[in-house]
Amino acid sequence: MKKKDAQIKVDGVEMAGHFFEPATGFPGVLFVHGWAGSQKRDERRSRAIAQLGCICLTFDMRGHGDMHEHLKTVTPAENLADVCSAYDALARHPGVDSGSIAVVASSYGAYLATLLTSCRSVRWLGMRVPALYEDEAWEVAKYSLDRKELQDFRSAQVPVRSNRALRSCTDFQGDVLIVESENDHLIPHATIASYIASFVKARSITHRLIEDADHALSTPASRHAYDDLLLGWIREMVLNAR
Amino acid sequence: MKKKDAQIKVDGVEMAGHFFEPATGFPGVLFVHGWAGSQKRDERRSRAIAQLGCICLTFDMRGHGDMHEHLKTVTPAENLADVCSAYDALARHPGVDSGSIAVVASSYGAYLATLLTSCRSVRWLGMRVPALYEDEAWEVAKYSLDRKELQDFRSAQVPVRSNRALRSCTDFQGDVLIVESENDHLIPHATIASYIASFVKARSITHRLIEDADHALSTPASRHAYDDLLLGWIREMVLNAR
Repeated sequence: MKKKDAQIKVDGVEMAGHFFEPATGFPGVLFVHGWAGSQKRDERRSRAIAQLGCICLTFDMRGHGDMHEHLKTVTPAENLADVCSAYDALARHPGVDSGSIAVVASSYGAYLATLLTSCRSVRWLGMRVPALYEDEAWEVAKYSLDRKELQDFRSAQVPVRSNRALRSCTDFQGDVLIVESENDHLIPHATIASYIASFVKARSITHRLIEDADHALSTPASRHAYDDLLLGWIREMVLNAR
Repeated sequence: MKKKDAQIKVDGVEMAGHFFEPATGFPGVLFVHGWAGSQKRDERRSRAIAQLGCICLTFDMRGHGDMHEHLKTVTPAENLADVCSAYDALARHPGVDSGSIAVVASSYGAYLATLLTSCRSVRWLGMRVPALYEDEAWEVAKYSLDRKELQDFRSAQVPVRSNRALRSCTDFQGDVLIVESENDHLIPHATIASYIASFVKARSITHRLIEDADHALSTPASRHAYDDLLLGWIREMVLNAR
């Protein structure tokens, strides 16, 4: 809460007055899409969350949207730089309270979001079907990764200390949402369990499973189930904190 | 809700992005003090309401605060001009949604606030122990009004069409809060009843009586009772409307 002087003119004289204002702007919510996804997928959710009183930012990572010619060459390291730049654009927005930023991310974007929490201040982290990669893939073109190797890596729980993204999660002290799809051909439950086990300092963990849902939320019912989960979590965590 | 382009730079290229923002700023709340009162009386309430997410403005009308040398000469017409100027200062504030302005006023200030609704857009009108004056007093020094005559005028219900302030209320289409003090030596129940009868188009009317309270809310218990009523009404009406 801020108190500021107000001089109000009337008939050539000035009345004394004071404005009393909320100390902070709106919470910011950064949406990070998944591999081969785009900002379009989060537009409806962004509109709904903006109506609740947040400023949302969606964007297309390099290799995506209008920059899809780079899809075959872009690396996780480059895409993390993208996410950091988008975060900075949101934090600089004059209406945003830069101490109140949430990140809502899917799959490959959720992997990058865990790493973002080590380089930027993130208060709330919403992850849907978070992917996990070996550290060795960091500067390799994401497109070229061997899918069979990835599946093998994800099929067992990964020791927290052995992976850069999981280590990043161990330091995160905010609220976490982890949403799993029941029929996910890319992210087995072992990967979800690896992430859950890594949030040892989180203020809260909300883990939910969407039944009959696949990785991409192909059905309207599964998308609505995710919308409801996400909006409820934003209301409870982000808006109630104010 | 507004959608705006965002160009986000990274490594010399630009990513496409979009901000999704709440369409509007914060609601504004204008506090209007009573005769011989001052903005100081509303400071604590303004702070509390600012913390809920509103921008509040308190001010001293001419004849009050640092301008008390004019107390004996200032007229209701002049003080309405003051209230209009303060309203304009609040509506101009860059953080305020000028279509979402509430006025919270006491006694003589509440009388002026009813007249303000005829010249400015007021969405919510909170009135505590609203005073009522004959139209003939409009350009007369308020200080010089005969108290006995005023008491006689207020002791019976006043026909709506016969009074400028009550006519103004008949056109008001927003939400109204009317707070009465049980032991009010200046505002008898007939005056409260005159006001209630005049709000024929209001979207809602919330009339409450504070027990054991006098006109000025001299006791801490009565002040707290009013604080609770006012904050509850602001939450229900102003903040739920968003």
